[in-house]
Amino acid sequence: MEPHTLFDYEALAEPRLDRPAWLFYSGGAGHEVTLRANRDAFDRIRLLPRMLQGAKAADLRTRVLGAEVSMPILVAPTAFQGLACPDGECATASAASAVGTLMVAATEATRSLEEIAAVATAPLWFQLYVYDNQRALAESLVRRAEDAGYRAIAVTVDAPRWGRKDRSIGHDFDLLPGMGTPNVGDIDLEPAALSWRDMDWLRSLTSLPLLLKGILTPQDALLALAHGADGIIVSNHGARQLDTVPATIEALPAIAEAIAGRCELYLDGGVRRGIDVMKALALGARAVLIGRPILWGLAVNGPDGARHVLELLRDELELAMVLAGRPTIASIDASLVRL
Amino acid sequence: MEPHTLFDYEALAEPRLDRPAWLFYSGGAGHEVTLRANRDAFDRIRLLPRMLQGAKAADLRTRVLGAEVSMPILVAPTAFQGLACPDGECATASAASAVGTLMVAATEATRSLEEIAAVATAPLWFQLYVYDNQRALAESLVRRAEDAGYRAIAVTVDAPRWGRKDRSIGHDFDLLPGMGTPNVGDIDLEPAALSWRDMDWLRSLTSLPLLLKGILTPQDALLALAHGADGIIVSNHGARQLDTVPATIEALPAIAEAIAGRCELYLDGGVRRGIDVMKALALGARAVLIGRPILWGLAVNGPDGARHVLELLRDELELAMVLAGRPTIASIDASLVRL
Amino acid sequence: MEPHTLFDYEALAEPRLDRPAWLFYSGGAGHEVTLRANRDAFDRIRLLPRMLQGAKAADLRTRVLGAEVSMPILVAPTAFQGLACPDGECATASAASAVGTLMVAATEATRSLEEIAAVATAPLWFQLYVYDNQRALAESLVRRAEDAGYRAIAVTVDAPRWGRKDRSIGHDFDLLPGMGTPNVGDIDLEPAALSWRDMDWLRSLTSLPLLLKGILTPQDALLALAHGADGIIVSNHGARQLDTVPATIEALPAIAEAIAGRCELYLDGGVRRGIDVMKALALGARAVLIGRPILWGLAVNGPDGARHVLELLRDELELAMVLAGRPTIASIDASLVRL
Amino acid sequence: MEPHTLFDYEALAEPRLDRPAWLFYSGGAGHEVTLRANRDAFDRIRLLPRMLQGAKAADLRTRVLGAEVSMPILVAPTAFQGLACPDGECATASAASAVGTLMVAATEATRSLEEIAAVATAPLWFQLYVYDNQRALAESLVRRAEDAGYRAIAVTVDAPRWGRKDRSIGHDFDLLPGMGTPNVGDIDLEPAALSWRDMDWLRSLTSLPLLLKGILTPQDALLALAHGADGIIVSNHGARQLDTVPATIEALPAIAEAIAGRCELYLDGGVRRGIDVMKALALGARAVLIGRPILWGLAVNGPDGARHVLELLRDELELAMVLAGRPTIASIDASLVRL
Repeated sequence: MEPHTLFDYEALAEPRLDRPAWLFYSGGAGHEVTLRANRDAFDRIRLLPRMLQGAKAADLRTRVLGAEVSMPILVAPTAFQGLACPDGECATASAASAVGTLMVAATEATRSLEEIAAVATAPLWFQLYVYDNQRALAESLVRRAEDAGYRAIAVTVDAPRWGRKDRSIGHDFDLLPGMGTPNVGDIDLEPAALSWRDMDWLRSLTSLPLLLKGILTPQDALLALAHGADGIIVSNHGARQLDTVPATIEALPAIAEAIAGRCELYLDGGVRRGIDVMKALALGARAVLIGRPILWGLAVNGPDGARHVLELLRDELELAMVLAGRPTIASIDASLVRL
Repeated sequence: MEPHTLFDYEALAEPRLDRPAWLFYSGGAGHEVTLRANRDAFDRIRLLPRMLQGAKAADLRTRVLGAEVSMPILVAPTAFQGLACPDGECATASAASAVGTLMVAATEATRSLEEIAAVATAPLWFQLYVYDNQRALAESLVRRAEDAGYRAIAVTVDAPRWGRKDRSIGHDFDLLPGMGTPNVGDIDLEPAALSWRDMDWLRSLTSLPLLLKGILTPQDALLALAHGADGIIVSNHGARQLDTVPATIEALPAIAEAIAGRCELYLDGGVRRGIDVMKALALGARAVLIGRPILWGLAVNGPDGARHVLELLRDELELAMVLAGRPTIASIDASLVRL
Repeated sequence: MEPHTLFDYEALAEPRLDRPAWLFYSGGAGHEVTLRANRDAFDRIRLLPRMLQGAKAADLRTRVLGAEVSMPILVAPTAFQGLACPDGECATASAASAVGTLMVAATEATRSLEEIAAVATAPLWFQLYVYDNQRALAESLVRRAEDAGYRAIAVTVDAPRWGRKDRSIGHDFDLLPGMGTPNVGDIDLEPAALSWRDMDWLRSLTSLPLLLKGILTPQDALLALAHGADGIIVSNHGARQLDTVPATIEALPAIAEAIAGRCELYLDGGVRRGIDVMKALALGARAVLIGRPILWGLAVNGPDGARHVLELLRDELELAMVLAGRPTIASIDASLVRL
Repeated sequence: MEPHTLFDYEALAEPRLDRPAWLFYSGGAGHEVTLRANRDAFDRIRLLPRMLQGAKAADLRTRVLGAEVSMPILVAPTAFQGLACPDGECATASAASAVGTLMVAATEATRSLEEIAAVATAPLWFQLYVYDNQRALAESLVRRAEDAGYRAIAVTVDAPRWGRKDRSIGHDFDLLPGMGTPNVGDIDLEPAALSWRDMDWLRSLTSLPLLLKGILTPQDALLALAHGADGIIVSNHGARQLDTVPATIEALPAIAEAIAGRCELYLDGGVRRGIDVMKALALGARAVLIGRPILWGLAVNGPDGARHVLELLRDELELAMVLAGRPTIASIDASLVRL
């Protein structure tokens, strides 16, 4: 089967991955109410297309925290991409760069943030985990990200502990021989229970823009703003932390209303279609991030697979924008959708 | 199996069509959320029948843009009907004429508009595609339609590009040897990205009534009116262009409210039952159009199949009108339905 | 399998009936949206039970148009009961009488109304079809019903024509050799298209109470009252006439509100459980009628089967009333349900 | 299969139980609309997690009617636990005590209340059935519970008769040889139809706190308060009494609003997940009780199984509280949920 949609990549990836890796990647917390909701909520939103806008092509370019990208589709941070293909995050970086979009490199990457930066030609952000009793490590990661030219730090705030996925209980996986997480070395990966005070400390560490990843309520979004966040990634961690939290596209509108443009909003979780991207933008996101589909692309065809995943989604978005009569990013607003 | 409903025709048609043609005809955009909604939305609407109206038969006759037709069920334009039966659109024209209703002949017909007109004894409309850099062709088609006695031009406004159907990706079909699209000759069929200014130009080309096919919002309906449209076909192109747009029967009420009788409204998309026709009329449509069911009829039994499809739907509508206590078209109003 | 619920009787009856008879009995109009809704709507209504009412048994007795019955569950008129068991309607009459409840004898019975009356010891109503150009027959049936001691005439008002059931198309059935419809003889059974004027005529024919069977809207309920009806049977003809009309339990509340106690309301359609009966009473019905389950009972075990069906439903209702803390019919009111 | 969730225990328990016992335990009243609703209603409620609360562990301790327990998860009373494992209720008591939580011992236990008390080191409540014409027995049970150190009496108020479960009709079970219900001896177990006056009598019998188990409406909750109840267990008897009553988590909010903190509220019915516990607490419950899962635990692995069930649910709750940013019982309030 030639893959023509992101769902095709998912189907092709499953048999190519070790079972434990597949279960780790694909699963969601608990019995996956939110995992299903992340998709269903997109499909329930109706698009209201406008006709006769005179455009046969769409311009997908936009800016994310000031950096120009070719499209409002970014690469989400996911751990251990080396399990999906040998070059791991470097393959992803070359794929994202090939299509001119931004990758968020993960703390728990199997390639160092410097190796990734050496490959990338498009902008990069660095996703930061702060580990328990490892403030010095966090500060060092921020410094290294600054030095390597990363454009922003996206700190994950929804993981004081790791969520529990019914699907992968009893199916632990190991990294492959020779594979590690060079950003953090061999230390124990227990996350820290961060507080808002820790955000102030992080904010004080760097002049890079700071994003908070994992916000689901307007209350926390306003706190993020008050604590100096430049951006918020509305995320439920791919539905992997706490089951029955809202789908991210359900959580976005109230957050967008509360923030009212005072910082940039991003969204990940369940984005698989060009129409999903358009809906997220209509409801207030500046761009979306995709995680698992990149892994499927890597597993199916290495960097070319990841690039093709991004191209498929880009092409779907471009066609959708034309057919909806919204041929520019700026023309996508709330009038496009009916909840 | 003897076909007794339009669904029976669908089941019988599938094995009689080449797989690629079946997939092309039956599929919808994306993963077909709207294709399913086009049907489900009809079934969710409740009919509120009135009793003891003293009528044992119903009078289905109505007028569409001034022309009398035997029933408020018209034949929608669909491309390449020659793939369904050798006589293609001429078979359809004779079927529609046999039951006294109007056919909308498609630009991309496998028979010329003149051949179709030569067969038809009932009124005809001409569905117009404007192609990229082919204004002269469009003007010529309008002239030929005028000359051949067509009663109106229905210009498709929802296709600046062709939608993408998961189902038929990788299953391209070819026209059969010797089959072409004589209205447009052998040119490349890239649609034009029309604008409202192009509507003014089309309006100026002809004194025939002008319909805009593919409107889904009240905003565009009002613009159509302002640009001189005599009618609007509320359509999502058989759910084939942009997935997750509303079902047409969901989109109709707001459009009917905005238009308030100032031009005629039509609807296509998912009409398979007499009760569906009645619901569309109750919500503001003057008539409905059916597309795929005609193809199923042609595939199963040529012109007789297409005629039988129209007769089945007519008979269902007639019985439904009697059982609902609305024995005339004029007696069908909003009090018949509960959304 | 020993049958313990009405659903058990349905499962047991299917293989015991000739296929065409099964399809005729079990089917609903169109693709059976309303047939399913008749059941689903009951299940969606929530019961709000009150505790500590001090009752271990319930008193089910009630009065229907003044006649005392053992429970608010009556036998609906259904045609051709001779297809389900040899004694047909006489078996049903003895079953209903055995449990002390009322049977509505059908015009299209395979036993004459006099034969039924000879068997019955509980009250009877007569369901009247008026046939086309057969006013004298209708008048004669009313006279015979009066003479035979029937307590009311229930005229069917929702059948100017017979509905069409996808399921039984092409599966016509014949009455068995020697079986007929003695009430009406061998004439052609085309129903008349009655009007409200015909109701006045019927009203003038007899001093028996008059019920209109087949009302689904408050407007028609008010007209029925204005034309002298003593009772209304909220019915969609077992979902057999016009598909997608409301479930009867959905239609009841608005009718009860409009009538406000000025005549008696009854309901049939989908009643299979004691809790369904309680819900119908809570929403304004004085009693319910069951149709198909009686046929299943007859098919499985003749008069004993029909009696057992009535007993099962009675026992379920009795238990439900105790568990809901509503141990008398009078204690069942709108506070029992949440729609 | 190693059990990792309460659902795993259910799957493992089914083949280990005699079929009639399995059907008796697992079934619900009627066709189990409420049984399904008890689960589905939990899954439909959305959790709104707050981030950056600085807690990596949660404190689950709480007080129930003044007694400290290790977590807001109690053991519901269920009959005949000896069918699930030889030590029956004594196994349960040791399991509950091992995790430091409260068990509600059932009148219809296969071990006497004194035997249970001898095993338990954590607090106990006694669930009281009052049987027909057995006031003296009830009074004696209350005295014995007082003497044995039980902390409260929870009288079941929703069972003037036993409900009827389609699933177990025709699958009666017997207690095993030598097994009895020592609390009540060999008498006939017909429940009494209690009234509010009987509550006054019970109230007068003892100075122990009195809970009413089986309340589903705010009206009855207010009456319970007026009659001196110290607590209310919002319960539909595991969906075993009257089908189509609300899920308990649906019934809870209106009761909590009516009671407004004037007595303690508890909930059972469908609790299988840590997130369910958190939702019940957010909507007004002080603790939840689990019934069937304890039986599954006993059936799979005796007291260790029951203890593991409690530990699994405790661990899920603890993780959920951390991930939701509510690390103490006091921090769980209505802002945590969206209905």
